[in-house]
Amino acid sequence: MTPTLKAEPISQAAIAGLAELIEAEGAADKLINQGLCGRFHDRASLDIAGDAGISVFKSASFSLPYRMEMMERHPHGSQAFLPMQEGTYLVVLAEDKAGAPHNPRAFIAGPGQGVNIGRNVWHGVLCPLSDTPPQAALFMVVDRVTDGPNLEEHWFDEPYTIEK
Amino acid sequence: MTPTLKAEPISQAAIAGLAELIEAEGAADKLINQGLCGRFHDRASLDIAGDAGISVFKSASFSLPYRMEMMERHPHGSQAFLPMQEGTYLVVLAEDKAGAPHNPRAFIAGPGQGVNIGRNVWHGVLCPLSDTPPQAALFMVVDRVTDGPNLEEHWFDEPYTIEK
Repeated sequence: MTPTLKAEPISQAAIAGLAELIEAEGAADKLINQGLCGRFHDRASLDIAGDAGISVFKSASFSLPYRMEMMERHPHGSQAFLPMQEGTYLVVLAEDKAGAPHNPRAFIAGPGQGVNIGRNVWHGVLCPLSDTPPQAALFMVVDRVTDGPNLEEHWFDEPYTIEK
Repeated sequence: MTPTLKAEPISQAAIAGLAELIEAEGAADKLINQGLCGRFHDRASLDIAGDAGISVFKSASFSLPYRMEMMERHPHGSQAFLPMQEGTYLVVLAEDKAGAPHNPRAFIAGPGQGVNIGRNVWHGVLCPLSDTPPQAALFMVVDRVTDGPNLEEHWFDEPYTIEK
């Protein structure tokens, strides 16, 4: 029997220590533009060795249940995913144990919610959710753009099934 | 008579030298995630003195014609606006002449299009467009998060009217 994960709504508390939720929650830190715009200031810890940059990811979308065969991590930098549309996406995070992901947990992020995954934190690949996959979804990604290796993959002997 | 600007569709060529269009245009630089995701790599020149960070802007929206009374610039860093919804927004840019904006031009950016405004380039404030203003719109913003002054404003004697 394949191991199964139930995806839960994402929250700052639930992902603490592994990733940061980037969203306009609560009161703005500052009102700008004559009071018409709230600035929710500096909501991600960019922890990048080398140069940070902005790239665009255009990904196929998926539906649940989702079969997760692999998790990855980036030893040289954090990676922020910022959705460009109002759909949901799946975020899977895990602590490390002896160089492998340990007890992965699955979360669903929604419109206006970016996620900054910590440096060297195990995570699933970008996984936009759609009722009509493989419709493409766009994300702005803030991560390390310096050349050179920055990826470690872990393939599971028994893939996980992630469901609602 | 107030000076009038006609907003034109944004393009990389039209804003060259002042700002960069960040979008998934043309072929991806790299296919990742087993070929299911295209990475359009490093599409913005982050030119930030101090620390770069990610903030969220939650702004009222506006409709055209729009009255532009002021332009601003940030001497210590570039500023990227990344829309979190599929609406359009207005981008006004100008060259500098003797410390003031010169010949501003207005552009309309759309879904999946981010704009990175160059360091110390005159621009209008964030201006999401909506048929039902003041509905709020969300943008992720990558700019300087270091404390300290980083804003210069120029108020026009005669405000501009920006129209379709």
